[in-house]
Amino acid sequence: MKQLLLIGIGPGDPRQITLQAIEALRRAQVFFVLDKGLIGRELLRTRHAMLDQHRADGNYRLVQVADPRRDQCAAHYQRAVEDWHEQRAALYARLLRDELKEGETGAFLLWGEPGLYDSTLRILDRVRQRGLQLTLEVIPGISSVQALAAKHQIPLNRVGEPLTILPGRRMPDQSAIDNVVVMLDGDCHFAHLEDPALFIYWGAYLGSSDELLIAGPLQHVKARILQVRERARREKGWIMDTYLLRRVS
Amino acid sequence: MKQLLLIGIGPGDPRQITLQAIEALRRAQVFFVLDKGLIGRELLRTRHAMLDQHRADGNYRLVQVADPRRDQCAAHYQRAVEDWHEQRAALYARLLRDELKEGETGAFLLWGEPGLYDSTLRILDRVRQRGLQLTLEVIPGISSVQALAAKHQIPLNRVGEPLTILPGRRMPDQSAIDNVVVMLDGDCHFAHLEDPALFIYWGAYLGSSDELLIAGPLQHVKARILQVRERARREKGWIMDTYLLRRVS
Repeated sequence: MKQLLLIGIGPGDPRQITLQAIEALRRAQVFFVLDKGLIGRELLRTRHAMLDQHRADGNYRLVQVADPRRDQCAAHYQRAVEDWHEQRAALYARLLRDELKEGETGAFLLWGEPGLYDSTLRILDRVRQRGLQLTLEVIPGISSVQALAAKHQIPLNRVGEPLTILPGRRMPDQSAIDNVVVMLDGDCHFAHLEDPALFIYWGAYLGSSDELLIAGPLQHVKARILQVRERARREKGWIMDTYLLRRVS
Repeated sequence: MKQLLLIGIGPGDPRQITLQAIEALRRAQVFFVLDKGLIGRELLRTRHAMLDQHRADGNYRLVQVADPRRDQCAAHYQRAVEDWHEQRAALYARLLRDELKEGETGAFLLWGEPGLYDSTLRILDRVRQRGLQLTLEVIPGISSVQALAAKHQIPLNRVGEPLTILPGRRMPDQSAIDNVVVMLDGDCHFAHLEDPALFIYWGAYLGSSDELLIAGPLQHVKARILQVRERARREKGWIMDTYLLRRVS
C-alpha cells in the first residue's frame, strides 16, 4: 500500500505550521510539488525553506512538475473546472504510480487549510476511481482567513450569527451582505459595492514579509485598497488576498 | 504597557498547535485560565499538560478563576449574552489590572481558533472601553471544524460554492441546507431534519483520545449519532461536537 499525506502548511508564515504537520513532514520519503507559474515559484521557495528547516537530513525525493492550468477564459466555469480536475487527476495518478513505491509515504504540502478552497482531495478521489490504492491522511493547517482575522484582531463571526466564506464570483447582492469572508477574488468585487454601511478588513500575502493590511469603512478605503493591491501585484507579479465584509449596524 | 496574547491552541490534539503558538507560550509571564465547570476541568488538564511540555521552566504565574456562567434559561438570547459578556468584562478587567504588572506579558490559551465562536476578543474590547490599556496579539489555531474535515477526509466547501458555518440555534429550514457546518449544537438540531438528500459528517471530542466519528446519509445514521452522543455525554459528563451537513445531488 502507498501512503499519501496532505499537509496543511499554513498561509505563508513558517511559524504557522503545527507540530503535527512537522511530524508528517518527517515521515515522508517523497514530496510532490506542483509548480503554478509565478505564484508557484515564490511559494516553492517557501516550501523548500520548510523542507530545509524540518528535513535537514535531506533524505527524501522531491518530485516537481508543472501543474496543468485551468482555462480562465472558458464560458462555462463548472465545465472548465471539471476538465482541469480531470487533467490533474491523470497527472497525479501517473506521479503516484511512477514516483511512489509500494510501502512508501508521499506528501503534498498544501497552502493554508486542505479543506478550504483546495482541490487536492477532490482530485485524489478521481485518482482512486482510476484504481490506484492509497492510504490517505489529512493534516489541517491555518488558513489565510484565520491569519486575516488574527492580524486585524477581529472575530470572524458575530455573536450567535452565521459566518459565510465564499469565492469572489459568488458575491451576493450587496443588500444581502452581512458578515462575509471572500477568498479567491481576482476581480475585486468589493470595488463595485456602494453600500455605505459596509466595513472591510482586507489582507494580502498574509503571514509573509510582504503582508499588507487595510481596514475601514468600505467607501473610505476601497480606492486605497485597489491602489495598494495593483502596485503590489505589479511589483511582485502576483497577489493573494482575502477580506471580510461586515455590515455595521 | 501590558501585553496580552490570545493563543489558539487547537481543538484538543496537543500536536495541533503551531510553532507560533509555542513561541507565544514561551513569552508569557502570566497565564489566565478560566474554569467552566466539568468541561473546563478536563480542558484544564490539557492546558496544564501543554504548559508542562512547552514551559518546563515553570517560570510563570497561573491565574485560575471560575468563569461567570451564562443564564441558559433566559428568554432573550442576545440579552443573556450581553449580561454575561458584561460580567466577564468586569472579571477580566479586574484580573488584568491586579494580576498583570506593567511591562509584563499575559496569555489566554483558547481552544480552537480565537476568531471562531469565541468571545474573548469581544470581551477584551469591553475591557479596553473601561479604560485599561493593553497591547494585544492574536495567534490563530486549528479549529474543530478543520479537525472534522481532516478526519473525514473531505473538503469543507464544494467547487466554487460558499461555505456556511453556524451555531445550532441558527439552523436554516432544511430545504435551504446545502453545505453547512454546525458548531455549538447542544440541542441536536440535525435529529429533526427529515430530508433524505442530506449527508452528515459528525465528530465529537475531535483531536482527543476520546474522539468519535460517524458519517453517512443523515436518515440512516442519525439514530446512531444520538445514541453514541448520549452515551459519551453521560460517561464523560460533557460533550463537544460539530458536524457538516451536505446535500447530495
